[in-house]
Amino acid sequence: MGLDEFDRIKKYFKPLASAERGSLDLLDDAAVLPIGSDSELVISTDALVEGIHYVGDEDASLIAQKSLRTNLSDMAAMGAAPWAYTLSLILDPLKKCSADQWLDSFVAGLQIDQNKYDVRLIGGDSVVGAGPTVISITIIGKLNNKGPLVRSGALQNDDIYVSGTIGDSAAGLQVIKGSLDFLDFSDQIYLKNRYYLPQPRVALGLALVGLASAAMDVSDGLIQDMGHLCSASGLAAVINWPNVPLSPPVITLLESKSISISAIINGGDDYELLFTAPSILRPDIEELSKKTEVSLTRIGYMTEGADVLLMDKENQLISLAGAGFKHA
Amino acid sequence: MGLDEFDRIKKYFKPLASAERGSLDLLDDAAVLPIGSDSELVISTDALVEGIHYVGDEDASLIAQKSLRTNLSDMAAMGAAPWAYTLSLILDPLKKCSADQWLDSFVAGLQIDQNKYDVRLIGGDSVVGAGPTVISITIIGKLNNKGPLVRSGALQNDDIYVSGTIGDSAAGLQVIKGSLDFLDFSDQIYLKNRYYLPQPRVALGLALVGLASAAMDVSDGLIQDMGHLCSASGLAAVINWPNVPLSPPVITLLESKSISISAIINGGDDYELLFTAPSILRPDIEELSKKTEVSLTRIGYMTEGADVLLMDKENQLISLAGAGFKHA
Repeated sequence: MGLDEFDRIKKYFKPLASAERGSLDLLDDAAVLPIGSDSELVISTDALVEGIHYVGDEDASLIAQKSLRTNLSDMAAMGAAPWAYTLSLILDPLKKCSADQWLDSFVAGLQIDQNKYDVRLIGGDSVVGAGPTVISITIIGKLNNKGPLVRSGALQNDDIYVSGTIGDSAAGLQVIKGSLDFLDFSDQIYLKNRYYLPQPRVALGLALVGLASAAMDVSDGLIQDMGHLCSASGLAAVINWPNVPLSPPVITLLESKSISISAIINGGDDYELLFTAPSILRPDIEELSKKTEVSLTRIGYMTEGADVLLMDKENQLISLAGAGFKHA
Repeated sequence: MGLDEFDRIKKYFKPLASAERGSLDLLDDAAVLPIGSDSELVISTDALVEGIHYVGDEDASLIAQKSLRTNLSDMAAMGAAPWAYTLSLILDPLKKCSADQWLDSFVAGLQIDQNKYDVRLIGGDSVVGAGPTVISITIIGKLNNKGPLVRSGALQNDDIYVSGTIGDSAAGLQVIKGSLDFLDFSDQIYLKNRYYLPQPRVALGLALVGLASAAMDVSDGLIQDMGHLCSASGLAAVINWPNVPLSPPVITLLESKSISISAIINGGDDYELLFTAPSILRPDIEELSKKTEVSLTRIGYMTEGADVLLMDKENQLISLAGAGFKHA
């Protein structure tokens, strides 16, 4: 192909989107369509391919939930309240014989998350295909009158925050592949669940409207996604590695050199929120963390330039091997 | 699988959609979301799979146009004006080496139809997959204050109309497969184009709002789709076979027994509009046909019952072999 997804978007699809301002030049997590003088819809499409975005032998309810949740994470990133979604389901024909069971479980997963996130199916398409299962969801959310959160609003000296912990999902995939068998069973379960079942920060995203100057979700790796926010905001970011929030199992792996810093900060599928806010709002962000019961960690600040600089505990630059996690 | 697409929808997906009235229980061509006191959006998702919904060796611009047009046809069926769409593109990895060329052509096709139908890309996802190419489009349209057209509004004694001609696309696929080589070259071209490049009746759909009592597009075959309209309206349909509009090439094929009546009325991919209207509106429908330059043919009427009855020129029932064209 020669081109990765970002090149494809820039070269091929951005020109198709330039006529509609609400496409945000395909640079944000979702599009925004005006639907009245004071109301906007947020729309995003995310596809999951068996064997690429999920393993394939998971319980189908988990696959369904991951499909919906990656889309819900885009709503969170925009500060939108999820409303409705359409589902395009291309079924692996090799699952034909067991498809009733598979679909039972798939639908059960969707039902759980419809209730949990107050969102519902409104349409779609389903086909028995001729390759791996492909699940493509288009989600529609509503904005309150202060939204949306976009990537381009960060200002110099703004603090940089990330929710939850980073690297769990990358480690989880290693557990699933069987390469971290020495870990405690409970740690293995924790990490696998972080890969199987993202926790979209929907309530946090809604609450960040009016506080965050810029936001996005971390799906392709902390460093790469930070780079997107920097590029959209025309600034650089300084991130202090010692401040990057890690879960106890990932700290264990790091201490035993079973996982690299690079795997943590370039690993994908975190589905945490990365956002910036002026330092004057530190007490509000702390308050918000308590209110939403989501840990929010200040990991750095925005500055002049165009790079993402990762600093160690002596404030020396850590070389960034690898440009980030790419699904395809 | 045991279940066809309609069974899958009914058994698995309808329960997920019951919470949102605008899903129309997944029975119509699109969903309808209220976005204010007097305004509604129409949303539909259609997926095309290489080797199932298109051959695969077409010029990629045709594949792009067909993908967008099957979705535009859903807008037409609802009487909605197309506005914006998202694209989920799963690329066949075997096309990797030639993907730049393929994407150039694919995007050119989308650009042509964006201009022709005044609709634009607002977002999406693209992945290099591990099977046939899958193109899933979600289209969003706007309704005027009299819409939408739905399938459930037909009344007893309403006339039944269909736009354009029926069976061309089914015959076109036979031409592409090489089984109708004896036809005139120009007829072959005509029929192939009808398969490759549907003509979504967008202007007609918009103009039918306020006239048609029920409407849908014919994508799965005239008889099967008529059955869906009957079922939604709680009525039966009597269709006069001699009145079903056929193109000259299809008439030639029929006369030489190279195509069956069943192939014509059960063949899919027509993307014509099927609609009902009270007989008092016959002059208006005639007027509309002139104004939109789309032939509209009265092919029957709605009556009590639940069947689709196809009558020959002696008004005898024609037995309907096959329940319709099914993509999957």
